[in-house]
Amino acid sequence: MKKRYAVVLAAGQGTRMKSSLYKVLHPVMGRPMVQHVVDQLKKLDLEEIITIVGFGAEKVKDQLENDSQFVIQAEQLGTGHAVLQAEQLLRNKEGTTVVVCGDTPLLTNATLQALLNHHDQAGAVATILTAKAPDPTGYGRVIRNEAGHVAKNVEHKDASEVELHVNEINTGTYCFDNRALFQALQEVSNDNAQGEYYLPDVIEILKDQGEIVTAYQTDDFEETLGVNDRIALSQAEQSMKKRINNQHMRNGVSLIDPVHTYISPSVGIDQDVTIHPGSILSGNTQIKSGAIIGPNSEITDCIIGSDSIIKQSVITNSVIGQRVQVGPYAHIRPQTKIGNDAKIGNFVEIKKTAIGDKSKVSHLSYIGDAEVGSNVNVGCGTITVNYDGANKYVTTIEDDVFIGCNANLVAPVTIGEGSFVAAGSTITKDVPREALSIARARQTNKEEYAKKMKNAKKANGGS
Amino acid sequence: MKKRYAVVLAAGQGTRMKSSLYKVLHPVMGRPMVQHVVDQLKKLDLEEIITIVGFGAEKVKDQLENDSQFVIQAEQLGTGHAVLQAEQLLRNKEGTTVVVCGDTPLLTNATLQALLNHHDQAGAVATILTAKAPDPTGYGRVIRNEAGHVAKNVEHKDASEVELHVNEINTGTYCFDNRALFQALQEVSNDNAQGEYYLPDVIEILKDQGEIVTAYQTDDFEETLGVNDRIALSQAEQSMKKRINNQHMRNGVSLIDPVHTYISPSVGIDQDVTIHPGSILSGNTQIKSGAIIGPNSEITDCIIGSDSIIKQSVITNSVIGQRVQVGPYAHIRPQTKIGNDAKIGNFVEIKKTAIGDKSKVSHLSYIGDAEVGSNVNVGCGTITVNYDGANKYVTTIEDDVFIGCNANLVAPVTIGEGSFVAAGSTITKDVPREALSIARARQTNKEEYAKKMKNAKKANGGS
Amino acid sequence: MKKRYAVVLAAGQGTRMKSSLYKVLHPVMGRPMVQHVVDQLKKLDLEEIITIVGFGAEKVKDQLENDSQFVIQAEQLGTGHAVLQAEQLLRNKEGTTVVVCGDTPLLTNATLQALLNHHDQAGAVATILTAKAPDPTGYGRVIRNEAGHVAKNVEHKDASEVELHVNEINTGTYCFDNRALFQALQEVSNDNAQGEYYLPDVIEILKDQGEIVTAYQTDDFEETLGVNDRIALSQAEQSMKKRINNQHMRNGVSLIDPVHTYISPSVGIDQDVTIHPGSILSGNTQIKSGAIIGPNSEITDCIIGSDSIIKQSVITNSVIGQRVQVGPYAHIRPQTKIGNDAKIGNFVEIKKTAIGDKSKVSHLSYIGDAEVGSNVNVGCGTITVNYDGANKYVTTIEDDVFIGCNANLVAPVTIGEGSFVAAGSTITKDVPREALSIARARQTNKEEYAKKMKNAKKANGGS
Repeated sequence: MKKRYAVVLAAGQGTRMKSSLYKVLHPVMGRPMVQHVVDQLKKLDLEEIITIVGFGAEKVKDQLENDSQFVIQAEQLGTGHAVLQAEQLLRNKEGTTVVVCGDTPLLTNATLQALLNHHDQAGAVATILTAKAPDPTGYGRVIRNEAGHVAKNVEHKDASEVELHVNEINTGTYCFDNRALFQALQEVSNDNAQGEYYLPDVIEILKDQGEIVTAYQTDDFEETLGVNDRIALSQAEQSMKKRINNQHMRNGVSLIDPVHTYISPSVGIDQDVTIHPGSILSGNTQIKSGAIIGPNSEITDCIIGSDSIIKQSVITNSVIGQRVQVGPYAHIRPQTKIGNDAKIGNFVEIKKTAIGDKSKVSHLSYIGDAEVGSNVNVGCGTITVNYDGANKYVTTIEDDVFIGCNANLVAPVTIGEGSFVAAGSTITKDVPREALSIARARQTNKEEYAKKMKNAKKANGGS
Repeated sequence: MKKRYAVVLAAGQGTRMKSSLYKVLHPVMGRPMVQHVVDQLKKLDLEEIITIVGFGAEKVKDQLENDSQFVIQAEQLGTGHAVLQAEQLLRNKEGTTVVVCGDTPLLTNATLQALLNHHDQAGAVATILTAKAPDPTGYGRVIRNEAGHVAKNVEHKDASEVELHVNEINTGTYCFDNRALFQALQEVSNDNAQGEYYLPDVIEILKDQGEIVTAYQTDDFEETLGVNDRIALSQAEQSMKKRINNQHMRNGVSLIDPVHTYISPSVGIDQDVTIHPGSILSGNTQIKSGAIIGPNSEITDCIIGSDSIIKQSVITNSVIGQRVQVGPYAHIRPQTKIGNDAKIGNFVEIKKTAIGDKSKVSHLSYIGDAEVGSNVNVGCGTITVNYDGANKYVTTIEDDVFIGCNANLVAPVTIGEGSFVAAGSTITKDVPREALSIARARQTNKEEYAKKMKNAKKANGGS
Repeated sequence: MKKRYAVVLAAGQGTRMKSSLYKVLHPVMGRPMVQHVVDQLKKLDLEEIITIVGFGAEKVKDQLENDSQFVIQAEQLGTGHAVLQAEQLLRNKEGTTVVVCGDTPLLTNATLQALLNHHDQAGAVATILTAKAPDPTGYGRVIRNEAGHVAKNVEHKDASEVELHVNEINTGTYCFDNRALFQALQEVSNDNAQGEYYLPDVIEILKDQGEIVTAYQTDDFEETLGVNDRIALSQAEQSMKKRINNQHMRNGVSLIDPVHTYISPSVGIDQDVTIHPGSILSGNTQIKSGAIIGPNSEITDCIIGSDSIIKQSVITNSVIGQRVQVGPYAHIRPQTKIGNDAKIGNFVEIKKTAIGDKSKVSHLSYIGDAEVGSNVNVGCGTITVNYDGANKYVTTIEDDVFIGCNANLVAPVTIGEGSFVAAGSTITKDVPREALSIARARQTNKEEYAKKMKNAKKANGGS
């Protein structure tokens, strides 16, 4: 097989984005557009990926540093000029070069592969990726000759009346014979209104040389969307969301409202998972079979065990066991591990904590920097006092402990196996196993006192 | 009137659902598809409903046990074979039999009634329910003769060029003269590529006998959707959601975003209720006039009184009075009753509790297994300590009580009328009426101590 | 320029709304429909706005009291009769009168201005605002003559076969020469099936007088939507939402899911703000550059400082500084001011409080009626006890204070600069600067006691 290369055009500022961020770094489903493009390119068998970046685009380079080489296009003198910046790296190489824009996040490797195959089979020096546009207004049109090859690539403004009725449009993605590309680029001139060097001019130059230029038309116009403003960015988001969600549904996941379910490309979901509306799954999240997620749960970089139920909660970078109930309104922060059959209830925050099987933290608690055993019942309002203003300390709660409500466990502290902490206690010293620990004041009832207080207030004009 | 029967085809495994659950049990708006079908059939005046179930489909039988008889189709040998399983129960009966698939959850009784009426009026032995498909590709087509009767029922793959342009499709729902149906089924053969017995073959057999076969075309193609995968399942969900929401809007309910409001078929809503986006109402919920629900409230099996406001909260199996404010971020669990003009505020959980008129639980509290009177102010952070690790106990708070913040009420305990519990107290004994109860330690200020602590920490390298 | 007047038709009860509220008061994006209409009229250079209201429509008058004069239409005798009620106020005035329905909330001042310009340039006595309807069924059609002027205005039911194919419809908005309007209205009869006086009859009367009647066709059919039931009301809501959201996206705001983002017309958002799904921004809210809002945050009448992050929270009438983190699940109530680099974490409620720079209230706290300095750490579960059942009192926490977990600060109280409050303390007296304050009982561990308790429970048959 011929060697293959890719040039990614990523130098445009994208003024219509109205942003201090480089256009290609704007995210779609949480991932920068150009990363989507490069991720698809990486699935092809390419020798090199060269990204053309603008002057000072350090963030673009940081984003792609493991995936691409970079060439600077210091001035924005057109797409032809952009590709020409890769000349030193590519000029002398035999093979095929794909040229793709960094703002086409929906393009798939399958389409790029089909483009390359078409190019090879046709024995062409250049192949344009085209699509049928529902409304081609504004797009360059590709005019075919009798052999089905490209007769002409014409901009909208230059098109004849007949050409304007052609709805096969140039998507801006190409592949070229690499040597032919760089030879032709030498001949591209900037003799036009904008004074720019246009890549499509290469097509005419190659045709004038008698070379075969073909076009590969993809079925999916949506996939070729180029993002130039934030309305298009939101359209790309909706398209990718739909693509991902349809795939999960085909795999046996029930999405109650796919329009309103947000699943990043990197998330894995087993068969027979149900996801309720408003849920957001992202990062390296894995949802196991039978789990029920949402409504309105936000889960990032987590493993959710089978048959667990996660209602109206936020969970980040944690591992949740099987048959666990979380929420509504729980917040599980990073480095947490919840055992099987555990329960994390409403208004509970867990952070950097391991909780054993069958343990319950049912209400209004904060458990941080803790090791909690199995069969533990953490009473409502319990707080691990893990911070003294300077350092953080660990709380250890052994198996079968019962912590009474509104207890403070002042770390470092160990609550021994099978022990019982009385409600309202602030525990500062270790509790031995099987002990009862209590730290609270005796109750005093002052008879008639409340009545007197109220009378006094009335006298003072209160209430 | 002729006697009428129904056969529901529910034996298909639904391999494209990729599920361990039988296809017809997958829910739409929270109710299994086949239950929707049977619910609509029950509104017709039928003698019997017979559901054809697959071998081992105990869950389907459990679902429909009060609504249907069952016949087992041990092997999946086609729709004709499926109906034939009902032969013993129906063979000798006079009347009309409706045959409907268990995976058509959107079909309405009105359409089925119209189908039956058409059948009777036409004096037909068989009537096909048809619809005009926007894109008929893949569907069987119904070809009419000059009299408007059915000339031919033809599968897509067998259709002529002319027939392919017909967009009247066979929806898979039929009614038949019962005796004619079972006689014709005897003649259906499995002499085809799949080796299956097809129900539509009955149509040709009856026509060959010179019988009249008609077709009733419904206006609503969407209603005839058959669900074969989870994408179609989600479409059924959206269609039913839209149907239900439009009906509520016609009745005088304001839905700020109907696309993102989820109301089960069994929910009743009065005029002049407003529902904000992301709300989910299900079960036997009733919302009274003037109530404002949401955003993002999930309400199941509740009565919400008039002019109450339920913001960002989860409420289950409870009764909420009039002019009550709930939320944001409240969780009201089953068997709770909230009086008029009460307030349940943020981060409050209420469980199995009655709360009187004008009482307030405004913040960060857990009230469970309690009887709370009227005009009670439950301070922030108050917890009913209702569980000792073995049993649950009741807390009684009488009228006009003021509970100070962060109090623990250790049940069983009674807080007498008009009494006052001081902030930070753990109350273990009853409080007499009009008393002040206090249980807390005296405050000690250690001058300069904090400064010393900080210096010590710095010496230790902290912070 | 000619003087200009407007008549707003707002007397209709709107029976299809099924509401106790006057139709024109039903809100779109939180603002009554008629207020949208009047807001657009106010951007034109009008002498007077006269709103025709029904008998007893005090709420309509209250809504518009600063914007409009009012005339009562005591009986609902048709649109012509409605306009005629303004006769006494307008009859003798020279100029142009716009007549617009109070139930067309999407109409823009740009379209009204274009209508007036067209009217003036054509030298017409009447101009109809028209639009091309995708499906004109039910609408009155405007038939043009060869000069492009109006030949005829014909109701759907009276239209000929040819006229029914015209899809230019009468939107119900007009402008008239004021004197000609009121003269013609004298001639309108109620000799029709409903016995009503119809405003469109003025068109025929003026044409019979040989006057020029023109039509101005707007491109945007959606904008001319008249709301007669709650389904149309929800459509108006979606249209306005889309219009507003597109404008924000064009301005450089990223909306992850514009379909599910609800931004009121009065909200201002800087470039490079990102808004996640389910967020609701309303009132006089301003979001500064770089802020990240949502998912599911509800923000009303707030300023959110640059680079702040507001996750799953409700904030009302408050000012949030720069680089502040709020949520998930925080509730910030009115009259709160949060300093720069502060953090308000999960299950925290703040009310009528100022919080200084770099201070943290990270979990499960209620801070109300407080002044909190800079660099303060408010421990988990801390509560300002601001209410004694009669009055509210202020808590002052000075700079660099550390409040331990589950502390109660019983207001009025001052916690002095640099001091430290021990976990579990109820503080009733001021704490001097740099002091340690502690108020809690000593811990007692009763060895083997928990074991005995459990054995006793088993003897009693518990759990």
